[in-house]
Amino acid sequence: MYQAERAGTVPRMAPRAPEHSFASDNAAGVLPEVMDALVAANEGTALAYGADPWTDRAVADLRERFDHPVDVAFCWGGTGANVVALQALLRPFEAVICPEGAHINVDECGAPERFTGSKLIDLPCAGGKLQPEQVVGQLHGIGDEHHVQPRVVSITQSTEVGTLYQPAEIAAICEVAHAHGLLVHVDGARIANATAALGGDLRASTVDAGVDVLSFGGTKAGLMYGEAVVFLTPGLADQVAFIRKQSAQLPSKMRYVSAQFSALLAEDRWLAAAGHANAMASQLADQVAGVPSVELSHRPEVNAVFARVPKGALAELQDWSFFWEWDPAVTEVRWMTSWQTTPDDVDAFVAGIAEIVAPHR
Amino acid sequence: MYQAERAGTVPRMAPRAPEHSFASDNAAGVLPEVMDALVAANEGTALAYGADPWTDRAVADLRERFDHPVDVAFCWGGTGANVVALQALLRPFEAVICPEGAHINVDECGAPERFTGSKLIDLPCAGGKLQPEQVVGQLHGIGDEHHVQPRVVSITQSTEVGTLYQPAEIAAICEVAHAHGLLVHVDGARIANATAALGGDLRASTVDAGVDVLSFGGTKAGLMYGEAVVFLTPGLADQVAFIRKQSAQLPSKMRYVSAQFSALLAEDRWLAAAGHANAMASQLADQVAGVPSVELSHRPEVNAVFARVPKGALAELQDWSFFWEWDPAVTEVRWMTSWQTTPDDVDAFVAGIAEIVAPHR
Amino acid sequence: MYQAERAGTVPRMAPRAPEHSFASDNAAGVLPEVMDALVAANEGTALAYGADPWTDRAVADLRERFDHPVDVAFCWGGTGANVVALQALLRPFEAVICPEGAHINVDECGAPERFTGSKLIDLPCAGGKLQPEQVVGQLHGIGDEHHVQPRVVSITQSTEVGTLYQPAEIAAICEVAHAHGLLVHVDGARIANATAALGGDLRASTVDAGVDVLSFGGTKAGLMYGEAVVFLTPGLADQVAFIRKQSAQLPSKMRYVSAQFSALLAEDRWLAAAGHANAMASQLADQVAGVPSVELSHRPEVNAVFARVPKGALAELQDWSFFWEWDPAVTEVRWMTSWQTTPDDVDAFVAGIAEIVAPHR
Amino acid sequence: MYQAERAGTVPRMAPRAPEHSFASDNAAGVLPEVMDALVAANEGTALAYGADPWTDRAVADLRERFDHPVDVAFCWGGTGANVVALQALLRPFEAVICPEGAHINVDECGAPERFTGSKLIDLPCAGGKLQPEQVVGQLHGIGDEHHVQPRVVSITQSTEVGTLYQPAEIAAICEVAHAHGLLVHVDGARIANATAALGGDLRASTVDAGVDVLSFGGTKAGLMYGEAVVFLTPGLADQVAFIRKQSAQLPSKMRYVSAQFSALLAEDRWLAAAGHANAMASQLADQVAGVPSVELSHRPEVNAVFARVPKGALAELQDWSFFWEWDPAVTEVRWMTSWQTTPDDVDAFVAGIAEIVAPHR
Repeated sequence: MYQAERAGTVPRMAPRAPEHSFASDNAAGVLPEVMDALVAANEGTALAYGADPWTDRAVADLRERFDHPVDVAFCWGGTGANVVALQALLRPFEAVICPEGAHINVDECGAPERFTGSKLIDLPCAGGKLQPEQVVGQLHGIGDEHHVQPRVVSITQSTEVGTLYQPAEIAAICEVAHAHGLLVHVDGARIANATAALGGDLRASTVDAGVDVLSFGGTKAGLMYGEAVVFLTPGLADQVAFIRKQSAQLPSKMRYVSAQFSALLAEDRWLAAAGHANAMASQLADQVAGVPSVELSHRPEVNAVFARVPKGALAELQDWSFFWEWDPAVTEVRWMTSWQTTPDDVDAFVAGIAEIVAPHR
Repeated sequence: MYQAERAGTVPRMAPRAPEHSFASDNAAGVLPEVMDALVAANEGTALAYGADPWTDRAVADLRERFDHPVDVAFCWGGTGANVVALQALLRPFEAVICPEGAHINVDECGAPERFTGSKLIDLPCAGGKLQPEQVVGQLHGIGDEHHVQPRVVSITQSTEVGTLYQPAEIAAICEVAHAHGLLVHVDGARIANATAALGGDLRASTVDAGVDVLSFGGTKAGLMYGEAVVFLTPGLADQVAFIRKQSAQLPSKMRYVSAQFSALLAEDRWLAAAGHANAMASQLADQVAGVPSVELSHRPEVNAVFARVPKGALAELQDWSFFWEWDPAVTEVRWMTSWQTTPDDVDAFVAGIAEIVAPHR
Repeated sequence: MYQAERAGTVPRMAPRAPEHSFASDNAAGVLPEVMDALVAANEGTALAYGADPWTDRAVADLRERFDHPVDVAFCWGGTGANVVALQALLRPFEAVICPEGAHINVDECGAPERFTGSKLIDLPCAGGKLQPEQVVGQLHGIGDEHHVQPRVVSITQSTEVGTLYQPAEIAAICEVAHAHGLLVHVDGARIANATAALGGDLRASTVDAGVDVLSFGGTKAGLMYGEAVVFLTPGLADQVAFIRKQSAQLPSKMRYVSAQFSALLAEDRWLAAAGHANAMASQLADQVAGVPSVELSHRPEVNAVFARVPKGALAELQDWSFFWEWDPAVTEVRWMTSWQTTPDDVDAFVAGIAEIVAPHR
Repeated sequence: MYQAERAGTVPRMAPRAPEHSFASDNAAGVLPEVMDALVAANEGTALAYGADPWTDRAVADLRERFDHPVDVAFCWGGTGANVVALQALLRPFEAVICPEGAHINVDECGAPERFTGSKLIDLPCAGGKLQPEQVVGQLHGIGDEHHVQPRVVSITQSTEVGTLYQPAEIAAICEVAHAHGLLVHVDGARIANATAALGGDLRASTVDAGVDVLSFGGTKAGLMYGEAVVFLTPGLADQVAFIRKQSAQLPSKMRYVSAQFSALLAEDRWLAAAGHANAMASQLADQVAGVPSVELSHRPEVNAVFARVPKGALAELQDWSFFWEWDPAVTEVRWMTSWQTTPDDVDAFVAGIAEIVAPHR
C-alpha cells in the first residue's frame, strides 16, 4: 500500500502467494509419517542418550541403506554434525580444504574453526564443486611446522548452489585425497536430494566412492530435527561419543531422533520426498524460464533454482513471498523447493513473479 | 534366571516392574499437550532460525512468566544451553565458581572448559549447595595475571542431589557475587521442579533474587527437546545470537522448539507436571523408608530420591528396573520421578525393591 | 661434486660464499649493543614478570618513540605477539580481514585461529598490500548470526613480499575500517625496516594513521628475542595482562627483554640497523639486476629481494649459500638482508649467483 | 619511616638488606657461563627455528644426560613448555589429574585448559605430592561419554611447596598410571634442584621411573630464558613440531636457547648451581629456625623455605626485602634461594628478619 502511495498510483492487488514458502527447505514442516513416528515413539519411558531400541533400529536402518557396517552418531543439527565429523578427523594444526562457498566456510559463523581450532583452506570453485587437482594444489608445506597440514577434504553433496557431484567425481576426489594421506568428509545436508537425483544409489556416491565420513542430513529431508554423522571408514568413530558430548551435540531423549530417521528411511520415503522436491524445482525452472526479465543461472540439478531478477523488483518479490537474495551484485536469488512444495505452489509463485517483475522489464 | 541357575536354587519370579523407569527424568516421554502442540505447529512452512510467530509467542510467554523483559535464546539441549550462557558471561581467562558436583563440572564431558576456555573452580558443597562465603573464599589473586579471575558463580536449581535453594539463599549468593563484580548463572535443568517445590513463584528465586542468567530446562520438564537460555540482566544477551550459532546450538526449524515451550508454560502446565513429579518422589521416599535395609540419604525436596541399598542387591535391582548408582563407595542410588510417574509405578517399585533386598538384610 | 660426476664434467670449484646468510633476517645475530645491554642487565636480582626498572624504562622509551601514551605488552616472539594482539581485539565469532599472504595466514601454523577461535578472511592482494575497498567488500552479513562478523583488519608493514605501505595508505585503511566499526592491527615484525624506508617517522604511519594495535618486531630488527605488542588506542589493553599470561607469552625474567628494547631504541639504533639492511637489499638488487638469466620480481622497498632464477640452478644455489624458494611455480626466490649483511656479502653473493647460473642460461 | 611517625616513636634504622632477593628463583640473573655462551653464540648467521649446530648439540647433550634417546622441543617459558607437553598427550575430552597446588592449576592463568580444552582434575595433596592411590580414585566413569577421561597424571618435581618426590615415589605413580592407560607428565621447572637434592641421578627419577614427558626447566636453573620439553617415551613427540609452532612456542633464533642449555649442562653446572641453591635454603632454614616467633613450616628439601611470621611484621618485612606471602590465613611466607644466593645474603636476611619481627613477639 505504502508503495502505491509513494508512487502516487492506484494500489495494485498483490498476486496470490504460494501456500508453501520457497525460502528454504528448512522452512518446510515435518513429513507426516515422521510426525506419526514421533507420536508413536512417545510411549512410556526409555533410557536416554541412545540406550533405547529406537536407536538400535535406526542405526541398523542406516547400515542397511549404506549396505555397509557404518558407525553412526546422531546429532542435533547440521552445523553440529559437521563439527563433530571434522573433530573426529582433525587435530588443530591440520587443515580442511573446501570450496569457498561451503556451508562450513560461510554459513556456520566460524563454528568449524572454533570447534576444531583448524584452518579452513577455502578455494574458489566454479559451480560450487571442488576439482581433484585443486586438492593437489594445496599439498605444499607438508611437514613444515610453519604451515597447517591439509588433512581433510570437505565437499557438499548436493552443493550450496544446487549442483551435484557425480559418483565418479566424488571417487576422483577421494582417490587423490587418499593418495596423499587426506580424508574426505561430505556435508550431506541435502544428501537425500543428491541421491534421489542420482537415481537412488546411496552406496555408489559414498561407500563405493571412498568417502570417509558423511554428515547425513535429516532436517532438510523432512525431519523436525536430527542429523547423522555416518562414519564409512572403520576406526574413525572410536572417540566420537566423547567428541559429540563435549561438543554439546548429544540429544538426551534420543529415541525421538532415532524414530524420525527410521521413519524417513522406511519405504525409501527419504528418496521419494527428495525426488519430489527436485521435481518441483525442475518444474519451477521450466515455468520461470518463460518469464521475461527473469534469467535462470543454470538448470537445477536438485531442489534449488537460482535466477536473476530485475533489481527494482526484488523488494516487492520478497515482501510478497519471502526468499533469499544470493548475490546482490547481480540480483541473483535462490528459490528452494521441499517435500512440501506442490505444483500449485509453483504455479502461484511463477504467476506472481511474472506479475511483479512485469513493470521492471 | 541365569542367576538362579548359577546359584543352584529354584528360580524366583521377578517382581512386577514399574511401567515407567525411575532411571532419570530424561527417560520420560513428552507431555501429551506438548506433543499435541508439535503436531499443531506442523502446518505449512515457516522461516527458520526463529523468524516465525511461534518463537515470538514463546518469548512473550517466558517474559510473562518471569514478569520481566528477559532476553531468550532457545537451544537444543542442557549442555548447549549452559555453554551458551557461560560464553555470554566469560572471557577465557575468567573462571566459574561452582559446586564440585555441578552438572557443568562432572556430567558434560568438559564442554564448559572446551567452549569457554575457562577454568571451573569447583568447591566441595554439602548437599550440593554453594554457600555465599565459599564465593568470598575464592576472591584472591584478583588482578594478578597468573591467576584466573573469578567472574561467574554457577549454581544448579534444583541441585544434582535433589536439594533446593530457597529464594533467600539464591539472593545471598547473588548479593555477594555482585558485590565483587561477579555474575550469577543458574543451571535450571530442573527449574520447573524447583519452582513447583517453592510454591510456583518463578520471579522470586530468579529476577528478584538477582540471578543474571538462567538455563531454563525444558527436556526434563516434559519436552521432547529444547532449553531456553534466559537473560535476566539487560545487555548480557547482546552477542548471544552469534555465540549460539558458532556453538552449533541454533535449531533451524525453531518453531518446534518454541511451540513446545508455549505449550509447557500454558495453564501452568510446567508447574503441575513438575509438582506431580515432586509428589511422586515424596511418596516414593515415604514408602521406601519402610523397607528394611534401605536407608534414605535425605528427604527429597524435589523429584529425586537418594538411598543406600545393600551392595549385594544392587545388580539384581538394576537388572529388574534400571536406575543409576550414585556413589559406589556406599552403594547410594538415585531414583528419579517425572511427570510420567504414577502412584502405581511407585507401589510396584517399592514392592519390588523390598522383595529383592529382603535376602540381603 | 656429485653434480659434476653426474654431468660427467670436471668438478668446478664452488665460488666463495658470503659470510652472512641471505636466508632470512632471523638468521642474523644480535646487535652488539643489544648483547652489551644483556650483559649489563645481568646484575643482581630483579623481580620477574616486568616488575623491574628495565621494563619501566623500555615502556617509557617506546612511549617516547611513538610520542604517544601507548600501552605495551612485551612477548616472546612474533607469532605470540600477533595472537596476543588479536585476542585483545576479537571475540571468537568475529573475523580478521587480511591479505592472503599474511604471515598470520600462512606462516603461523594456524595459531591465530587456534588462539582466537576466529576465522581469517584472507584476500588476494597484489604486492601483498590490502586495499581499502577490499575491506568494504567484506562488510556483508553484518548482524547475521550465520556469518562471522568482520572486526579486525590486519596488515603487515613492511609486507611479506618486501613492499611498503605509505602512511597515507595505512590511514586510508584505518579510515574505512573505523568508519565501519572495525579495528586495525599491524603486524610489524619488520616495522623497523618500514620506518627506516619511510624516513624514520614512526608516528606518521602508526598513531597518526589511526592504527589501533601494532606488533612491534624486535627479533628481526636485531634482538635475540622479544616483541612488543603496542596498543595505540586507549582501552584496548585493559585485559592484555591476562591474555598474555594465558597465552604463555609472558617472559619471566622480563628485564632481559626490556633491556634489549631500550638498547635497540637508543640513539635510533633500530632505524640505523634497519636502514642498513634496506640499503644492502637495494645494493643486492642493483648488482643482481646485471646477472643474465636472473630477473628481479620488483625493486626492493625494504630488506627483501625477490627474483626468478633458472630452475636448473636452484638446488646448487641453495646448497652453496642457503635461501628460501618463494614460488616454485616460477622459481621465484627470496633473498633477505639484515643489520649484519655487509657490502662484501653482497659482492660475494652476486658473484656466486652469476657463476652458478651461468651454465643455465 | 612513616610507621615510626604514625607510632610516635623514634625512627629505626632499617637493617642491611641482602644483595640478592629471596622473592623467587626467577628473580635471579643468568649464570655467568650461560651468559658467556650467549655471547659466544653471537657469531655470524644461523638458520632459524633449530636448523643450526647449537641445537643439534644441545639435543645431544640432553640425550647424554638422560642416557636415553629422548626427543626434545625447546620452548620459550615454563607455561609454554607445559602446554606443549600436555597437548602432545591429550585430546580435549581427556583430563589431567594433578595436585591442587600444581603450577599448571593455579599459576598459569588457565593456560592448560585454554590450550588443551581439557579439564584439570585437581586433588588436595599433603605436602604438594600426589599419591598413587589418588590416581586410582579418579578412574571412574571410564568409557562414559558424560565424563572427561583421565589420560595424564601431572606432578611437579620438585613441588611448588619445596618438597621432593623420591624416585620410587615417581615410579609408583607411573606404574599405576600406565597400568590404567594413563601417561605421566612431570613439570620440572625445578628439576635441577630436585636432581641435585637426589644426588644427581637424572635418569633414576625420569627414564627409569617411567616418566613419559618432562618439562625440563632452564630459567629457574640459571638461564635467561628457555625450557625443554623432553619426551622420554618414543612416539609421543611425533606431532610436537606443529603443536609447538601453533602454540606460539617456537623460538626463531633458536641457537641462543640451545647454546644456553649446552652451557647449563656442561660440567654438571646445572647440578652445581642447583645444589648451591639447595644448600643456601638449608642454611637459611637452619639460621631462621633460631629466630623467635618465626616458625618453619617444614625442613626445606630443595631451594624453598616456608615459614610463618608474625602477621604484624609482614608488611615491613616485604617492604624491606620483598618476598611472597604464600598463605595469608596463617601468614605463611615463601623464601626462595637461587644459584645467586650467597651465605652473606642468608646472614643479612636472617638478621634483618630477626630485627624486624622482634617487636612483634
